[in-house]
Amino acid sequence: MNIEGMRVMGIDPGLTRCGLSVVQAGRGRAILPVSVGVVRTPSDKDLTERLLRLSVAAKEWMDDYSPDVVAIERVFERGQVSTVMQTAHVVGVLVLAAAERDIPVYMYTPSEVKKAISGNGRADKKQMTTMITRILGLTEPPKPADAADALALAVCHCWRAPAIVRMDATGLGLGAKTSGVRGRGTVLNSNVPSTS
Amino acid sequence: MNIEGMRVMGIDPGLTRCGLSVVQAGRGRAILPVSVGVVRTPSDKDLTERLLRLSVAAKEWMDDYSPDVVAIERVFERGQVSTVMQTAHVVGVLVLAAAERDIPVYMYTPSEVKKAISGNGRADKKQMTTMITRILGLTEPPKPADAADALALAVCHCWRAPAIVRMDATGLGLGAKTSGVRGRGTVLNSNVPSTS
Repeated sequence: MNIEGMRVMGIDPGLTRCGLSVVQAGRGRAILPVSVGVVRTPSDKDLTERLLRLSVAAKEWMDDYSPDVVAIERVFERGQVSTVMQTAHVVGVLVLAAAERDIPVYMYTPSEVKKAISGNGRADKKQMTTMITRILGLTEPPKPADAADALALAVCHCWRAPAIVRMDATGLGLGAKTSGVRGRGTVLNSNVPSTS
Repeated sequence: MNIEGMRVMGIDPGLTRCGLSVVQAGRGRAILPVSVGVVRTPSDKDLTERLLRLSVAAKEWMDDYSPDVVAIERVFERGQVSTVMQTAHVVGVLVLAAAERDIPVYMYTPSEVKKAISGNGRADKKQMTTMITRILGLTEPPKPADAADALALAVCHCWRAPAIVRMDATGLGLGAKTSGVRGRGTVLNSNVPSTS
């Protein structure tokens, strides 16, 4: 499948800092950076207010950049319980924003992203930032870490999308039943990106 | 504080079955049932589609019944990881629906609800259903369990609201900083219910 021109929005979800990015697939494995940023919400505000702000920001990005697909980090039960739950609330709000626009959503674990970008599922932050800077031909490393992570998610999806689509086409692919499958993105919406 | 007339929407969040209820505070501890129901989403649909359906349903309830406040069950890391995360995604979507309508949201743990309703934080489902049926003067027990749980959350908030408001007024109350406080609802939006 030719994915040239496909626009992917990568999201590193978080309540305090949420990394947002958009990239566009070029020829072969080339990927063009389109935009990257971090949305912050103040920790002294209520959860309601913070989720609302994140939702508004994500919707603005989706409406401004019209991504064909959203790639978002899968939340794990790791770290402080309250932080994990907050991040999971954020993911719900972000997935809803995509659903309302009929944009398919794929989730990737951190190790899937690291492996796709660096070949090593345990790559550290510095290695990841170096690779992302090189892959996208950036003049300087993206900062903060949430911005780099958001770009890495988008790049990860670009490189995995052809395989995902092939598997869908052969009936081996990703449906709702395969949501536990590792090693390639888990589709959350069975619409295949329709570009090209 | 007189909360008579206050309308509370109680929500037992879940991706497969989500209990929704609305009650209205009467005189003293009296509470009038207004509506109860369960929204189901098919497990063979994508997460995006299921969150969208729940969001639409919750918004319809909020617009139809105009609750002054939403009481929702706090999600814990208990049970299967994927189920907990899905429920946390649902909570994000529901809190967002309230935030978009400027409706304050309070969260209660299951044991807080059980204690408020039955005096026993470890009451079983049967005891809870019996109490809720009696408190609301229902002719028969609400079914399924998600419906009863949604009503219990709404009743729990009605009975706790006066204390919460008093604490807010004395500066001992619930701000964003007190989100870890147990034994009374955790406010997620510092607007105090403005009815009566």
